[in-house]
Amino acid sequence: MLSDLPVPSDPRVLVDYRNADDAGVFVVGDVALVQTVDFFTPIVDDPFAYGRIAAANAVSDVYAMGGRPITALAIAAFPARDFPSETVRAIFAGGLSVLRECGVALLGGHTVQDLEVKFGYAVTGLVSPDAVWTNGGARAGDVLILTKALGTGVIATAAKFGRTDDAVLAGALASMQATNRAAAEALLTHPGAVHGCTDVTGFGLVGHACEMATASGVAFEIEAAALPLLPGALELALGNRTGGLVSNREHFSALVDEGAVVPERLALAFDPQTSGGLLAAVDAAAASALLQALVDAGVAAAVIGRVIPASTSTRVRLR
Amino acid sequence: MLSDLPVPSDPRVLVDYRNADDAGVFVVGDVALVQTVDFFTPIVDDPFAYGRIAAANAVSDVYAMGGRPITALAIAAFPARDFPSETVRAIFAGGLSVLRECGVALLGGHTVQDLEVKFGYAVTGLVSPDAVWTNGGARAGDVLILTKALGTGVIATAAKFGRTDDAVLAGALASMQATNRAAAEALLTHPGAVHGCTDVTGFGLVGHACEMATASGVAFEIEAAALPLLPGALELALGNRTGGLVSNREHFSALVDEGAVVPERLALAFDPQTSGGLLAAVDAAAASALLQALVDAGVAAAVIGRVIPASTSTRVRLR
Repeated sequence: MLSDLPVPSDPRVLVDYRNADDAGVFVVGDVALVQTVDFFTPIVDDPFAYGRIAAANAVSDVYAMGGRPITALAIAAFPARDFPSETVRAIFAGGLSVLRECGVALLGGHTVQDLEVKFGYAVTGLVSPDAVWTNGGARAGDVLILTKALGTGVIATAAKFGRTDDAVLAGALASMQATNRAAAEALLTHPGAVHGCTDVTGFGLVGHACEMATASGVAFEIEAAALPLLPGALELALGNRTGGLVSNREHFSALVDEGAVVPERLALAFDPQTSGGLLAAVDAAAASALLQALVDAGVAAAVIGRVIPASTSTRVRLR
Repeated sequence: MLSDLPVPSDPRVLVDYRNADDAGVFVVGDVALVQTVDFFTPIVDDPFAYGRIAAANAVSDVYAMGGRPITALAIAAFPARDFPSETVRAIFAGGLSVLRECGVALLGGHTVQDLEVKFGYAVTGLVSPDAVWTNGGARAGDVLILTKALGTGVIATAAKFGRTDDAVLAGALASMQATNRAAAEALLTHPGAVHGCTDVTGFGLVGHACEMATASGVAFEIEAAALPLLPGALELALGNRTGGLVSNREHFSALVDEGAVVPERLALAFDPQTSGGLLAAVDAAAASALLQALVDAGVAAAVIGRVIPASTSTRVRLR
């Protein structure tokens, strides 16, 4: 809708809102700024965890571009009346704990009164202009690595209806609160080996894979059996599909060959993730070393497929 | 409420959320990033003007720190149903027109569904680390310059109730849509002459003057008769006081000596401004030259007072 608004061309802009990428990139001197903004309504009951998830999710976009986050501005909305100040404090404290882990300075923010709680951040990072990981860099022959297990959507839905046990919910909460810092740093250990990257969020693994494959002019072949799944996710997958999962599957259907994948794994492949992992297309020669670096860093990463030439309109082939 | 949350000290952070300043400042190499975020509900009926005002207001915080804005991320909330896409487009187009005027690249943004419309930006600018204009730099002997006329609050309130004519409303709309770029550039013509600066927004002229004087450890003497006022503002001042005006006067009462100022001018001195002008404390020796530079740039600036030593708890003395 906004694509034809007049925008002057600026050679310092490497990536802006007209790309379907995770963040914008702007060159300043020898470095480039990676900038992103994200905020959302609460998805968990614990305010500290909500703050952590919102921050982990926001900084993730910088990591997904190959950048190192440096600053954040908080964006918050709280009801004017009867909203406990301890809750506000816990949300900000959770967010700050993640920013601190990632070495990010909170410079400021803006809070408004609103009926519905919202929280998130505008985050700025630095990246070398010639080392930006975009959606469009995947090449045929690359290996696909995913750095977090799938299933936060179905588990959060199950929890809402009391259909999950504490251990399963705790696993999903821990995953969403974990930042992608360790994953990004492990992927940076082999300069130039990452050809393309994104983080897996609302469109689910397959949706983001479609966007990446389309931007790169290639196709992704994904092994459903190789997908890392959160504990309990497989059992909950069919009974707890969200509206987002269904609409993801519909929205990307023309680009996806679902093969003969079992319904549970298919559901999780489309499950909208909150604060999901990085999906990286990496040089095949470096894939084993990168996977080892990820595992050594404590990241539950897995090789989930490979990049192939795009011979038809299909962008993601599941098998 | 958040002041005691644990934050590691970082020498690259020159200004952060713990200062009552317009934006945060973070050093990157030879330059520093100036970062701010602001968004609000519509204050005018015209969506293009609303977008312009939101953008002018957001970039203003960067100018108020002596910075030059370079990038922006849009922050938007619109109702899911029955909200015309042309209106959304007009808001974004208005914002983009201001960003373009200021040489700012729109890198991205985040839009959510919400019952209440909201719009604004997170803005990043550059500044030399040794040339940041903070609230805390005003010195006794400085001259106070204000770069926009006052009265947007009372005029917007009067317009809401049909108590103003088109010309008066048009004057206020034009003022809110004008950026502080020309004012900031004029103030930068004499390097080092600006000792402290802020922009006048929700707390009104006196509220922001109180914050600046407090941060600087001085007092401001403001000549009510010298305040530049929007056409029609004086006549509307007493019948259109907003809740913000009344609470500003109450909130800062302990720090303000109201003298014998006539009620109309007193009201406008506390009137909450949207996208207001810069309030600068400048070296007395450069004041005339700076005022001339401002006037030459088409800025309706005026000398409104001076900085004096703080002998009592009074921070702003009106006369």
